Amino acid sequence: DMAVRHYTLDFNLSTAVDPASTVSGLLSIFHEQELTETIHDTDGHGYLATFGLVTVDLQCYEDDDIAQLDNVRAYTGLPALLRGAKVDRYWPTADGRLIEYDIDKVVYEEDSEYQNIKILHSQQYGNILVLDGDVNLAESDSAYTQAITGSGKENYAGKEVLILGGGDGGILAELVKQKPKMITMVEISFTGKHSLFLDHSKSQQRKTCGDILDNLKGDCYQILIQDCVPLLKKYVQEGRTFDYVINDLTAIPISTLPEEDSTWEFLRLILDLSIKVLHPSGKYFTQGNSANLTEALNLFEERLGRLSCPVDFRKEVVCVPSYLEQWVFYTAWKK
Amino acid sequence: DMAVRHYTLDFNLSTAVDPASTVSGLLSIFHEQELTETIHDTDGHGYLATFGLVTVDLQCYEDDDIAQLDNVRAYTGLPALLRGAKVDRYWPTADGRLIEYDIDKVVYEEDSEYQNIKILHSQQYGNILVLDGDVNLAESDSAYTQAITGSGKENYAGKEVLILGGGDGGILAELVKQKPKMITMVEISFTGKHSLFLDHSKSQQRKTCGDILDNLKGDCYQILIQDCVPLLKKYVQEGRTFDYVINDLTAIPISTLPEEDSTWEFLRLILDLSIKVLHPSGKYFTQGNSANLTEALNLFEERLGRLSCPVDFRKEVVCVPSYLEQWVFYTAWKK
Repeated sequence: DMAVRHYTLDFNLSTAVDPASTVSGLLSIFHEQELTETIHDTDGHGYLATFGLVTVDLQCYEDDDIAQLDNVRAYTGLPALLRGAKVDRYWPTADGRLIEYDIDKVVYEEDSEYQNIKILHSQQYGNILVLDGDVNLAESDSAYTQAITGSGKENYAGKEVLILGGGDGGILAELVKQKPKMITMVEISFTGKHSLFLDHSKSQQRKTCGDILDNLKGDCYQILIQDCVPLLKKYVQEGRTFDYVINDLTAIPISTLPEEDSTWEFLRLILDLSIKVLHPSGKYFTQGNSANLTEALNLFEERLGRLSCPVDFRKEVVCVPSYLEQWVFYTAWKK
Repeated sequence: DMAVRHYTLDFNLSTAVDPASTVSGLLSIFHEQELTETIHDTDGHGYLATFGLVTVDLQCYEDDDIAQLDNVRAYTGLPALLRGAKVDRYWPTADGRLIEYDIDKVVYEEDSEYQNIKILHSQQYGNILVLDGDVNLAESDSAYTQAITGSGKENYAGKEVLILGGGDGGILAELVKQKPKMITMVEISFTGKHSLFLDHSKSQQRKTCGDILDNLKGDCYQILIQDCVPLLKKYVQEGRTFDYVINDLTAIPISTLPEEDSTWEFLRLILDLSIKVLHPSGKYFTQGNSANLTEALNLFEERLGRLSCPVDFRKEVVCVPSYLEQWVFYTAWKK
């Protein structure tokens, strides 16, 4: 493995200084910490001295004898960046923060027709599904399924339920326990996220979906492998309604330029059709996005206020363990 | 603000290459992305080329015109490191991972007799208490209080409760609602974490502790400002017992060298005294540490098995929102 351990050290100085004298001054500090050899090895690269702030980078191979470098954390609080490793541990949050996961291996990887799909293993979160670099769901994340099914406050017994997406099987597995009349789950394709779970879930996402995806049809559920948009349009034409519509297709787009991002248009279309097939006393559940993306969330809420069927809504902020950021979920119903 | 934005780019190459030709090759890629000027400014510093792996650092002032540099994330997935900023956003997890918080200001800072105390504000977690660089508790973390009081499965009505530590007031505020006979909370000192909350909680940690810390005595609680060790010894001598003992003093030490870390000895002493004052049908609650610190957790469990009073125990893994890692809590009871 060619991974490099990259330590960053930052010092705030009270006055402007000469770079050369600063570095020689720092060397004596490193010398006390028995770091002299490593500093020498960097041969002048990797430091940048400026007015009032000195940043120093130390780079070495992961398997070099650098036990003493772990003391560096005492100065900076910053653990080493592991760069160029075979298994990437850095998966930024939706709000763009740098986050290091405890990923220890890549379980599965595929470039599908639709997206890059990875299943990564984390010691604490279990298997994590990563789609195009975004953390999607982990085995630890029953909080996600709880939130998008109404946080345990709904009674699904005898109800008609429509799930849009939900390919990981978590929502379906949770709801069949509650004896609904019928759950219809619509997945676009055997490729992508969906095929991944349909084909591989038996070993890789067992905790999330149980054995529910082994069959496409059960006593109180059916899984339709098709695009949900024509199906929703057909339901609207037939006047068919559902007590619950659960949209698990996509988060609210991070981009707040709807005219430049087709996901916003897709989201508006799904939202409009979903509310049309919702029973007058029914509920619509969907995820929002990171609680920090206030601009995108506001834009979504504004759109909720301009649907062809008027709706009220409420939101809930939920901690989904593997997301490492607070996540917003919405409930909407017809006025 | 002298903060530097530090971008790191890593490229995996299939064969060994000459550093100079690699850099000139990379320049043409950057040129396509209109990054030429920024590369030129780094003047040869900040890159390191090795066999099969090239890492490139780009450093610039935070307020430089670097809008186009945000495209860099497309290559690496790594957001820029903000170095030397007045407000530090990087607070590693207990298991040593690099984590960027959404800290936007320092609410309070003090070097007390015991430790460095900071209250930092996070957009999504509210105020966060950081002691000696460790994230201790945030306003979002009612899950911590829930877990260390038995996850809602206990009935405190009419019970005698002893809280060791708990200076943020969250546990006390939660339990007084349940009409216990008497809660005795023992805090060592008006300095440190404890004084911070006792003196400042009115504005800064309102959501965590309510107004419970405004008075040191209420109908069903008393707060004793003293070292808990002599008090526990006195209780043992008097033969006094409690239905619940909640130890909120400290996490299990990360060091797994008990002979070199006095915190382990302190923990053993507290544990032994706590079990001695526990009613035969009582329960002892305490936090463990990060679920990933298996060695430290195992050491703790081994010690639980060697107390002067034999105990059984169970553990629970809980998601405390601001911790950004799964956290272990323990319940112990007399055999």
